[in-house]
Amino acid sequence: MDAPKEPRWLDDEEDQAWIALSSMLMRLPAALDAQLQGDAGLSLFEYQVMAALSMAEDRSMRMSELAAFVEGSLPRLSQVVGRLEKRDWARRSTDPSDGRYTVATLTDDGWDKVTTAAPGHVEAVRTYVFDSLTRAQVRQLTAVGRRIVGAIDPGHPLVTGAVDKVRRKK
Amino acid sequence: MDAPKEPRWLDDEEDQAWIALSSMLMRLPAALDAQLQGDAGLSLFEYQVMAALSMAEDRSMRMSELAAFVEGSLPRLSQVVGRLEKRDWARRSTDPSDGRYTVATLTDDGWDKVTTAAPGHVEAVRTYVFDSLTRAQVRQLTAVGRRIVGAIDPGHPLVTGAVDKVRRKK
Repeated sequence: MDAPKEPRWLDDEEDQAWIALSSMLMRLPAALDAQLQGDAGLSLFEYQVMAALSMAEDRSMRMSELAAFVEGSLPRLSQVVGRLEKRDWARRSTDPSDGRYTVATLTDDGWDKVTTAAPGHVEAVRTYVFDSLTRAQVRQLTAVGRRIVGAIDPGHPLVTGAVDKVRRKK
Repeated sequence: MDAPKEPRWLDDEEDQAWIALSSMLMRLPAALDAQLQGDAGLSLFEYQVMAALSMAEDRSMRMSELAAFVEGSLPRLSQVVGRLEKRDWARRSTDPSDGRYTVATLTDDGWDKVTTAAPGHVEAVRTYVFDSLTRAQVRQLTAVGRRIVGAIDPGHPLVTGAVDKVRRKK
């Protein structure tokens, strides 16, 4: 990205917002990860991968689709799914409909694990996020989050509406 | 954290907010990191450490204070400051006022590096965050971010107001 000759520094209000946002970006994932590690022995990313599979048809997704869904890179996802396989919570297989793709599937043990972990995770999300926000702030957060994600990736499913379609299948 | 017997699942509005927030938590740090790596050869965390030192008195901070300021753990910070030392951008020394503490100082080369990198980083922050938000949304983001950080850490300087005091010294 080319910087302009005269930097557009943040003004006071933007600076305050940036400090609050930066703190949240560091603190919230760490807090959610700590709850899951402590209560379920899962990282936040492992949980998100298993939760995504639990909502998919046949509890299966192509690795490339799963990577996009959990906003992770394919190499990182492969590493995490490899760890889940070792614990018999997921398995990988060739897509029967197209041999170029690999499909990840949640096992029955994986289903039990993620459904047991879910209430504690949701409680943490409530405690750290929703219990402290008014209903108006919940809507503001949706709008702000979508705009920021859209500025980074204008083709993101959140912006184009494809996320709603995927999730409503569950 | 004890999960209640009947999980308080998210309703539709909360679910939408959570999806938007989760995407932002994954995408924004990755996008800012990519800009800094590409344009300045710095990670986002390295940049934040150097920027914090650049604003401090004598361009120096105790490692423990610096860790709190950049919201990182002390082991992670030590690793990053070690890397900065190898590039002659920072150095560590014993606090002359209290030998139990280690102080990190930004070198002249480090100052040049961070001030050269700053305009491109600020431009990325504008592009990804502020250009897509209305002025009202900037204020909403400040309020929402502070509430979430306060829910995770009620003693956080953002909540008690200590951040303003620190930053106004610059």
